[in-house]
Amino acid sequence: MEAYLDNSATTRCSKAAADIVYKLLTEDYGNPSSLHMKGVEAENYINDAKKKIAKTLRVQDKEILFTSGGTESNNTAIIGAAMANKRAGRHIITSSVEHASVLSVMQFLEEQGFEITYLPVNHDGVISVEELKNAVREDTILVSLMHVNNEIGAVMPIEEAGAAIKEKNPAALFHVDAIQSYGKLEIRPKRMNIDMLSVSGHKIHGPKGSGFLYIKDKTKIKPIIYGGGQQKGMRSGTENVPAYAGLGVAAEEIYTDFDKKIAHMYELRDHFIESVQRIDGVSVNGRIDHTNAPHVVSVSVDGVRAEVMLHTLEDRQIYVSAGSACSSNKPAISSTLKSIGLKPSLLDSTIRFSFCVNTTQEEIDYAVSVMAEVIPMLRRYTRR
Amino acid sequence: MEAYLDNSATTRCSKAAADIVYKLLTEDYGNPSSLHMKGVEAENYINDAKKKIAKTLRVQDKEILFTSGGTESNNTAIIGAAMANKRAGRHIITSSVEHASVLSVMQFLEEQGFEITYLPVNHDGVISVEELKNAVREDTILVSLMHVNNEIGAVMPIEEAGAAIKEKNPAALFHVDAIQSYGKLEIRPKRMNIDMLSVSGHKIHGPKGSGFLYIKDKTKIKPIIYGGGQQKGMRSGTENVPAYAGLGVAAEEIYTDFDKKIAHMYELRDHFIESVQRIDGVSVNGRIDHTNAPHVVSVSVDGVRAEVMLHTLEDRQIYVSAGSACSSNKPAISSTLKSIGLKPSLLDSTIRFSFCVNTTQEEIDYAVSVMAEVIPMLRRYTRR
Repeated sequence: MEAYLDNSATTRCSKAAADIVYKLLTEDYGNPSSLHMKGVEAENYINDAKKKIAKTLRVQDKEILFTSGGTESNNTAIIGAAMANKRAGRHIITSSVEHASVLSVMQFLEEQGFEITYLPVNHDGVISVEELKNAVREDTILVSLMHVNNEIGAVMPIEEAGAAIKEKNPAALFHVDAIQSYGKLEIRPKRMNIDMLSVSGHKIHGPKGSGFLYIKDKTKIKPIIYGGGQQKGMRSGTENVPAYAGLGVAAEEIYTDFDKKIAHMYELRDHFIESVQRIDGVSVNGRIDHTNAPHVVSVSVDGVRAEVMLHTLEDRQIYVSAGSACSSNKPAISSTLKSIGLKPSLLDSTIRFSFCVNTTQEEIDYAVSVMAEVIPMLRRYTRR
Repeated sequence: MEAYLDNSATTRCSKAAADIVYKLLTEDYGNPSSLHMKGVEAENYINDAKKKIAKTLRVQDKEILFTSGGTESNNTAIIGAAMANKRAGRHIITSSVEHASVLSVMQFLEEQGFEITYLPVNHDGVISVEELKNAVREDTILVSLMHVNNEIGAVMPIEEAGAAIKEKNPAALFHVDAIQSYGKLEIRPKRMNIDMLSVSGHKIHGPKGSGFLYIKDKTKIKPIIYGGGQQKGMRSGTENVPAYAGLGVAAEEIYTDFDKKIAHMYELRDHFIESVQRIDGVSVNGRIDHTNAPHVVSVSVDGVRAEVMLHTLEDRQIYVSAGSACSSNKPAISSTLKSIGLKPSLLDSTIRFSFCVNTTQEEIDYAVSVMAEVIPMLRRYTRR
């Protein structure tokens, strides 16, 4: 059998989402900028997708900006906020465990003269709200935090963080990278004091090449791509109508029967953690209770290199990640695993299992049984 | 019957291109950054698409950078070249008739302290190579010219321009916006001294949300989007494998039986120009011979406002553009039409017809017959 347990890298696009993509490529293919009916029709698809998405977050349709994906959403939010607000200050706060699409942008901004504070995390991968509060200054213009960590599934205290930031400096913007949390947690930007929120389509069974950035009404940011002035000038370029419509469909799908879906994933996760930990020398990183996200399990296998483990599983059609597969395929030591203080000997022996709503217990059991079978053998061949 | 004559705004995606998009969304959906087989498979689709595209330009596969579309290609080329080379100089040359995705970027760079020279065009919409040569200075780091004008189909003397730039200043980079020429003209970057070339997928029956930038090997530019380091760090973000594969298919298709396709479009164009000019008060802008692109005809209808003409045609299921539909749908007076010295009374009375390889003579004849019928009537109701 096959077990695709790499859903935090990418998911299979849902049939309904793929169907609308196909339809809008081949039938209703108008350019929303066209003044005639085919353009109006295309624009209606975009508006409908915005409405579907806005509903999942309880925000206004006009607060949704479509992008080409999560990386572009993060870049737009962070660079856009920095460039628009640099006269108010040049201090930005983030954490040490962010995704590369945040950390690389921070490095770029450091070169441009911004000062970045990187908050540490505890051994569960979570920042301290107290430390965040102490870090917020008068010249802090932006705080950017991920909601769910892509490598271990740790959940950041976003609501408490939002309250703390605004209490200390109401003018500081709060950006949340929700790429691993949208569709897995309930997100309420208004209640959580979130000004910007990044989401990627292909992590929630939507099309690749789709994403959005929630931008709270009246938030001042600059675009990073210039041109024909589409999407109120915030993201020029002919709108990718098929992908945005597909994303709308996927967003609506994932938040339908949401509680049932999440319960299913937690059941799988609990079962997986319980079974996999019975294998000698296998440990799970981060929290194992339901304060962690439901779909990610980081597993260290003492004495077996991650790449060896990954390819052995691959031979049995079990697909997982070594560290984070969101960055390009040079295997580098993960900053999250280092930040949570994982034993150095395990840094290179950690793989990530990630589930989706369609993952079955059969797949989980199959993966665990293969691991139980191959680990003792692999350990014998590994140089220590 | 229906006549979609707005192919310079967007085209219908070809069945083969849409089919591969669907397949890669729902079956081979891996993330190219994943180390397992599903990732490798996805990477193979990307490599295959690069090969197909590189072949159409006779360049190397590794010189193709995928983007989310033409606007991102233009932004990456121009901002990327400016930021990477600003120590060598801050002077950039372009023309007064570029697309908004070039002109808006130039405005952004002016705010950043770059000096921009805008070359004028003659009444056919073409720059003077002599004037270009005179404009190139020691501190010129970039020249950006469109190949085919999106509003009137004028063809810029790219090969002569390339030679002139390199003769005057070999270090100056030459970027060509080929969004309206790729698939309609033969393009040879090496022979034409082109360092960067922007292409959009949805203008050649490929998927929306796809595009590429040809970047000559060893050309120094900076990325505009940061993150996981995909595509050698030049465009981070999970690759939109379905769209890139679809673009590869569309690129191969459009350059198959190329001469026949172009001959077909010129036949339609000649026939259309001949017929439409017989209508009283109707004139065609730019060159009417084959030194103009085969797929665009700009038509001025004396005494009838463009929007009125457009909506009247729309009622008969004939779809055209008022000015350029590539910019967002506020109807603004076109800079190209002003630049070629069109009579002020006609600026607001000009519509664009644009064909594709699938356009038929029947559609053309239908459009002309409707125009002949309605124009005298519309003219009567228009305030002068």
